[in-house]
Amino acid sequence: MPTSLHKADWIAVDWGTSNLRAWAMTDQGEILAHANSPDGMGSLPPDGFEPALLRLIDSWLGAGTTPVIACGMVGAKQGWAEAAYAKAPCPASSDTLTRAPTHDTRLDVRIIPGVCQPDPADVMRGEETQIAGYLAHDPNFDGILCLPGTHTKWVHISAQEIVSFRSFMSGELFALLSQNSVLRHSIGDDGWDDTAFADTLDAVISRPETLAARLFSIRAEQLLHDQSPQVARARLSGLLIGAELAAAKPYWLGQPVVLIGAPQLTKNYATALAAQGVTPTVKQGDSLTLAGLTAAYSAQKDSK
Amino acid sequence: MPTSLHKADWIAVDWGTSNLRAWAMTDQGEILAHANSPDGMGSLPPDGFEPALLRLIDSWLGAGTTPVIACGMVGAKQGWAEAAYAKAPCPASSDTLTRAPTHDTRLDVRIIPGVCQPDPADVMRGEETQIAGYLAHDPNFDGILCLPGTHTKWVHISAQEIVSFRSFMSGELFALLSQNSVLRHSIGDDGWDDTAFADTLDAVISRPETLAARLFSIRAEQLLHDQSPQVARARLSGLLIGAELAAAKPYWLGQPVVLIGAPQLTKNYATALAAQGVTPTVKQGDSLTLAGLTAAYSAQKDSK
Repeated sequence: MPTSLHKADWIAVDWGTSNLRAWAMTDQGEILAHANSPDGMGSLPPDGFEPALLRLIDSWLGAGTTPVIACGMVGAKQGWAEAAYAKAPCPASSDTLTRAPTHDTRLDVRIIPGVCQPDPADVMRGEETQIAGYLAHDPNFDGILCLPGTHTKWVHISAQEIVSFRSFMSGELFALLSQNSVLRHSIGDDGWDDTAFADTLDAVISRPETLAARLFSIRAEQLLHDQSPQVARARLSGLLIGAELAAAKPYWLGQPVVLIGAPQLTKNYATALAAQGVTPTVKQGDSLTLAGLTAAYSAQKDSK
Repeated sequence: MPTSLHKADWIAVDWGTSNLRAWAMTDQGEILAHANSPDGMGSLPPDGFEPALLRLIDSWLGAGTTPVIACGMVGAKQGWAEAAYAKAPCPASSDTLTRAPTHDTRLDVRIIPGVCQPDPADVMRGEETQIAGYLAHDPNFDGILCLPGTHTKWVHISAQEIVSFRSFMSGELFALLSQNSVLRHSIGDDGWDDTAFADTLDAVISRPETLAARLFSIRAEQLLHDQSPQVARARLSGLLIGAELAAAKPYWLGQPVVLIGAPQLTKNYATALAAQGVTPTVKQGDSLTLAGLTAAYSAQKDSK
């Protein structure tokens, strides 16, 4: 249970499928406290959201009402309150937040909507807030934001709007294949091989039609040729990121690209893009989420 | 426990990762009895194979020694006894069987080796016996055998030899994605849509580089456009079989193709190949496994 002597002016919340993260904030943008819990949207019943939030932030609340600004899967249909998607093309920061029902009168919870794209059908929840955070500091950016993760997003930004975007399941596929498929016998939990990553990536980008034939080879190379678990790990990553880059080529080709995420996620994408002649800028994702939540809080406050 | 008044002249065994299947046979090829158990190679310790087999076939054994011919993962390194791979190009039926160590003197167990291919690295265990069974009835076949399954095999046959082959993880990927990924929320346990399958297949074969972008759309189409679980199921299958056909094109293009497997597995491959102008012949897999085991038994007997 986090404790703090300071009461928060407002509270920023990033509430995903697997995790809940909160920051106690001042109106001046100072972070008074930070707390995490594993109470992600995926593990909570509909009436479990308010208690889960209070367990984390109760000590930050004063006697009056404290505004809470939340983003992520908390706004999904199975979340606390459904925040209907904004439809791309649209600004990254919506001014239509959804109020979540609360029993505790100290809470005023507003949820930032995700963004949808009708054709090709796609959705995001949470990434739009990181994007808004990025644009808060670089409002004139025109180019591509790539946010690697379980479901990596490639996003075309122009004139402060999300013009179009596309999601890729490479992160989830890597986890499933390396932990739950026959390849698990051949792939190490960690370790890496730069050459194996580069070679596999190059082979898939130049001949994407060969992708499906290359997966089982990761198993067979270990059985027949004693391929190391580290090489196997790098090859699987090279296959999946290579397939993603082949499909996302209309996004990154000839464009300025900014990678947003944790260093261990952005590193391989940066290497892969560099091999294609693209030199991306890399930004930490965490600070941008908070910047986006702060921008949404400020906009709400100014509109009152 | 199966019982039989007849004692077997020999016993045919198909021993895979998940299942053990056995047939009590006469020298004339008559099936006296058939039995299954879930004692697959994947669930047995090294000393568990002989007891697992005896539980299934004890009542078929006479006072003397009964030959047992086995194929499949029972011959893997983690199996009963490692049967070293034959190396392609090679005949489908090897005459070098590996004897498994037994305590019960009524058993003489011989394991058929799998087939490996050094480059591109690939392996099979069990399919070679189905192939041998097919060739026992059609020895002059020259073309492609496709054996759909968890790890589908495409095999080039010429002059009674396995010339080359390639494995695809489409079956395992379908299971993982439809049951363990975010797509599980959108995909039905059964049902089908012919048009969705055909359209998705065509899109991936004509533009294989778009594969990675199409997976998450299966989720988004349901969220945004109420795509049915049946359509989602057919689309995922179309994506994976489409990616496989794109990669396996050097095998099937302009070649006679025979599909070997259970009807529910071969049906979608037959539809997909037909859309590419290939009209495959379809054969049941079970009877071919037994035919291959019978051919191996006869060859062993003749060589004595």
